[in-house]
Amino acid sequence: MDNTRRKEIYRIIEKDDGTNKASRVFDIFIFLLVIFSILQIVLESHKNIYLAYSYYFKIFEVFTVIIFTVEYILRIYTAKYKYNKTDFWSVIRFIFSFEGIIDIVSILPFYLPLAVKIDFRFLRILKVGKVTRIFKLGRYSKSFNTIKSVLRKEKEVLVITLVFSFILILISSILMYYVENPVQPEAFPNITAAMWWGIATLTTIGYGDIYPVTVLGKILASFVAIIGIGIIAIPTGIISAGFVSEIKNEDDKIK
Amino acid sequence: MDNTRRKEIYRIIEKDDGTNKASRVFDIFIFLLVIFSILQIVLESHKNIYLAYSYYFKIFEVFTVIIFTVEYILRIYTAKYKYNKTDFWSVIRFIFSFEGIIDIVSILPFYLPLAVKIDFRFLRILKVGKVTRIFKLGRYSKSFNTIKSVLRKEKEVLVITLVFSFILILISSILMYYVENPVQPEAFPNITAAMWWGIATLTTIGYGDIYPVTVLGKILASFVAIIGIGIIAIPTGIISAGFVSEIKNEDDKIK
Amino acid sequence: MDNTRRKEIYRIIEKDDGTNKASRVFDIFIFLLVIFSILQIVLESHKNIYLAYSYYFKIFEVFTVIIFTVEYILRIYTAKYKYNKTDFWSVIRFIFSFEGIIDIVSILPFYLPLAVKIDFRFLRILKVGKVTRIFKLGRYSKSFNTIKSVLRKEKEVLVITLVFSFILILISSILMYYVENPVQPEAFPNITAAMWWGIATLTTIGYGDIYPVTVLGKILASFVAIIGIGIIAIPTGIISAGFVSEIKNEDDKIK
Amino acid sequence: MDNTRRKEIYRIIEKDDGTNKASRVFDIFIFLLVIFSILQIVLESHKNIYLAYSYYFKIFEVFTVIIFTVEYILRIYTAKYKYNKTDFWSVIRFIFSFEGIIDIVSILPFYLPLAVKIDFRFLRILKVGKVTRIFKLGRYSKSFNTIKSVLRKEKEVLVITLVFSFILILISSILMYYVENPVQPEAFPNITAAMWWGIATLTTIGYGDIYPVTVLGKILASFVAIIGIGIIAIPTGIISAGFVSEIKNEDDKIK
Repeated sequence: MDNTRRKEIYRIIEKDDGTNKASRVFDIFIFLLVIFSILQIVLESHKNIYLAYSYYFKIFEVFTVIIFTVEYILRIYTAKYKYNKTDFWSVIRFIFSFEGIIDIVSILPFYLPLAVKIDFRFLRILKVGKVTRIFKLGRYSKSFNTIKSVLRKEKEVLVITLVFSFILILISSILMYYVENPVQPEAFPNITAAMWWGIATLTTIGYGDIYPVTVLGKILASFVAIIGIGIIAIPTGIISAGFVSEIKNEDDKIK
Repeated sequence: MDNTRRKEIYRIIEKDDGTNKASRVFDIFIFLLVIFSILQIVLESHKNIYLAYSYYFKIFEVFTVIIFTVEYILRIYTAKYKYNKTDFWSVIRFIFSFEGIIDIVSILPFYLPLAVKIDFRFLRILKVGKVTRIFKLGRYSKSFNTIKSVLRKEKEVLVITLVFSFILILISSILMYYVENPVQPEAFPNITAAMWWGIATLTTIGYGDIYPVTVLGKILASFVAIIGIGIIAIPTGIISAGFVSEIKNEDDKIK
Repeated sequence: MDNTRRKEIYRIIEKDDGTNKASRVFDIFIFLLVIFSILQIVLESHKNIYLAYSYYFKIFEVFTVIIFTVEYILRIYTAKYKYNKTDFWSVIRFIFSFEGIIDIVSILPFYLPLAVKIDFRFLRILKVGKVTRIFKLGRYSKSFNTIKSVLRKEKEVLVITLVFSFILILISSILMYYVENPVQPEAFPNITAAMWWGIATLTTIGYGDIYPVTVLGKILASFVAIIGIGIIAIPTGIISAGFVSEIKNEDDKIK
Repeated sequence: MDNTRRKEIYRIIEKDDGTNKASRVFDIFIFLLVIFSILQIVLESHKNIYLAYSYYFKIFEVFTVIIFTVEYILRIYTAKYKYNKTDFWSVIRFIFSFEGIIDIVSILPFYLPLAVKIDFRFLRILKVGKVTRIFKLGRYSKSFNTIKSVLRKEKEVLVITLVFSFILILISSILMYYVENPVQPEAFPNITAAMWWGIATLTTIGYGDIYPVTVLGKILASFVAIIGIGIIAIPTGIISAGFVSEIKNEDDKIK
C-alpha cells in the first residue's frame, strides 16, 4: 500500500511515458520554476531592481527552495525504483549522481549562513535538462536525436580538429609573443596573453583589445587568420556530412 | 457589368498568372514606388539633404500616399474575390489580415496630426514581399521554393540549436558576471549587460565594447568562443544537408 | 606570307593549346610582369621606399609600358583571327571589348600629362585573368571548372539570399537609426551610417567603430546577429550542396 | 649481438606496431616531456613566475636537454634501420631530414653561449607530431585519415580559393588606399597597411584598429565583406562535400 503510493510518486516526478497527466503538469511546473528562478538571478544582478523588490525576491526564493527541497526528498524517497537496488544503495547512488549533486548544490546556499558568498543558484538551469522531456515528445524528439547522433558519430574528427586548433594557437602565440613583446610589452606581457589574442583571432571574434602592430606580427596574424578560416570550415564540413549521412539513413529506412 | 470591371481590377492588383500585362505593369509600378519610398526615408534621415530638398520630398510623399490609398481602397473593393465570402466579411478579413494592417499602417501617419511622431513608413518595405511575384515567375521561383522547403523541413533542428545557444549564452553570461563584475563593474554592471557580451562573442562579432580582462574571464570566454564555432557549424551543417537532400530529390524526380 | 607571320603571332599571344612553347613563355613573361607591376604599386605607396628608389621604379615603369604597348598593338594587329570579321570591325570589337579597355586604361596614364592624377595601373591585375591559362592546364583546370560550375548552378539561390540580406540590413538599419539616433547622434547621424553598422554586424566583422548602447538597440542587434548567422549558413549550405552534387556527377561519369 | 641491441633500440624509439610495451612507454614519456617543455616556455614568459622559480626551470631545462640529446644520439645510432643505407649515408640523411633539423635546433640554444638570444625551444612542439602515434592507434586513427584524405583530395580547389582571395584582397586594398589615404593618412599610410585591413575584413575578424571612414571607403568595405562571406563559404562547402563523399565511400566499402 505504501509502496503503491511511492511508485505513483516515482512515476510523476521521474518517469514519463506520455500518458500520465500529473507527470506532465509536474514537469511544466518545475520547468517554469527553473525559468523564473534564472530570471530572478538576472534581475537581482540589477542593483536598482534588487533594492526596489528585494522583499518579493526573498519570498519567491523561499518558495522555490521549499519546492526544490521537497522534490529532492521525494527523489531520495523513490530512488529505489530508479536504480533497482536496496533502499540504502539506491539513495547513495542518487546523492552522488550528477543529477543529485546539481539538486543539492542549487538549494544548499540558502541553508548555509550568509557568510558563504558563492552563489550556485545558477546551476538550477541544469535542471532544465531533466525536464526537457516536455519537448522531447513529438516531432522535436526526432530532431533532437538526429543532432545527438551526428555529434556522437563525428566526435573523433571534432576532437582531432580541436587538438590541432590548440597546437596552432600555441605555436602562433609563442611566436607572436617573441615578435610583439619588445614593441608593445603592455599588450603582450607574456605568452598567456598572446594565447588570448590567438583564440580571439582564430575564432574570428577580434574584440580589438589586443592585436599586432609590427609588420612581422601582422604577417603572422594574417597566416593564422587564413588557416583559422580553414579550421572553422573543417567542423562545419564534418557536421554537415554527418547530417547528410543521417538524413539519407532515415530516408532509406522509410523506403 | 460592374462585377466584370471589379473582377478585372482584382486580376490586375492581386492575381498574376503571367499572361495579364496590366498586372505586371502594376506590380513593377508598386515595386518601384516602394523602393523609392524607402530611399526617401534613408535620404530624409540626412539632415542636410532633408533641408535642401524637403519640398520635393513632400510632393513625392503626397504622391506615394495617394497611390497607396487608392490601392488600399481597390483592395477593399475587390476583397470578396480573394476570400470568397460575402462583401462584408471579406472586407473585415482583409482589414485585419497581416497584409491589410501593413497597408493601412504605412499610410496612416500621413493622415494623423503632426504631433504623432512615430513613423511607420518603413513598413512599406514589407509591401515588397507582395510584389516579389515579379521575380517569382521563371527560374527564381524554383530557387525560392527550394530555400523555403529546406528551411521548413529543418525548422525543428534549427529551433533546438537556437534554444541550446540561448542556454549557453545564459549560463556563460551569469558566470562571466560573477567573474568580471568585481574588476570592471562599469563594463559588466549586471547579467543583462553580460548577455550582450555573450551574444557578441557567440556570433563572433566582437565589437570590442565589452570583453573580459581577468584571467578566469578570458578562459571562460575562450570556452564560449570555441563552443560558439561548433554551434554556428550546426545550423550550417543542417541547412547544407537540407539542400543536398532537396537537390537529390529534384534530380530523382527528373530521372 | 605576311598572314602566316600574323597567324603565328596570334597563336603566341592569344591561343594556347598546350603545344606551343613560345606561347607558354609569353604567358609566363606577361604574368610575371603583371605581378611585379602590382608589387611596384604596393611599394611605391610606401613614401620612404618611393623616394629612395624612384629612379628604378621609373625605369621599370617605362619598360612595363613599352611591353604592354607592344602587346596592345599586336592584339590589334591579330584581332581578325580572334573575331573572324573584316580587319576594321575586328579592331573595333577588340578596342571596345572588356579586355581591350583594360589593356588601354592600364597603360594610358603613362602617356597622359602628369596633371592627370588618377592612377589606373592597378587594373593591370585584371590582365592576370587572361594569363591564368598557365594554371588551367592540368589538374587545376578541373577544380577551377568545378567551382565555376557550382557557382553558376546555384546563382539564383545566392542572388535570393543576397536580396534578403539586403532587405534585412535595410529594415534593421532604419529601426536602429530610430532607436540609437537620439542617444548617440554622432554614431548614428543618419540611416546610411546605420547601414554601415548593419553590414559590419550581419557579416560578423564588428569593427567596433559603431554599435548600439541602448537596451532596445542591443536587443535589436542581437536579433540581427542571430539571423545573420542563419543567413551566412544559407550560402554555405547551398555551395556545399552544389559541390556534393557536382562530385557525385563526376563519380557517376567515371563509373 | 651489438646489432640485436641496436635493432631493439630502433624498435623502441622509432617503430611502433602496437605490441612493443617499451616503445609505448617511451612515446608517452617523450610526449609528456614535450608538453611540460612547452608549458615551461609559457610560464617563463611570465616575468614574476620566472624570477620566483628560475632555479627549478633551469634544472628541468638541463634534464630535458639531456634526454633530448640522448634521444638525438640514439636516432643517429639507429639511422641505418630507418633509411636502409650504409651507416654514413643514413646518418647524413637523418641529420638533414626535417625531423633531424627540428631535433638539433630545439636543443642547440642550450649549448650555445648565452649571447645568442634566439630561442628555438618552442620548435619542440613539432616533436609532438612524431609521437602522435600514441593517439593514432584505435579509433582516432581512422578519423585522422579521413581528415587527411579529404584535405588532400580537395587541395586544388582550396588553393584556387586562396589565390582568388588574395587577388580580391590585393585589388580592394589598392582601391581602399586610394580612397582612405587622403582622409586618414595615419591609418592607411600605404597599401601594405591597407592589406592588413583587407585580411582582417575578409576573414571577418575586424579588430577595429583600422577601418574606412569615408562613404566611398565604407561602400567598398561592404562589397569586400559580402564577397568575403561567399569566399568563406567556398572552402567550407568544398570540405563539406569532401566529407560527404568520403563517408559515402566508407559506407559503400562496408556493404
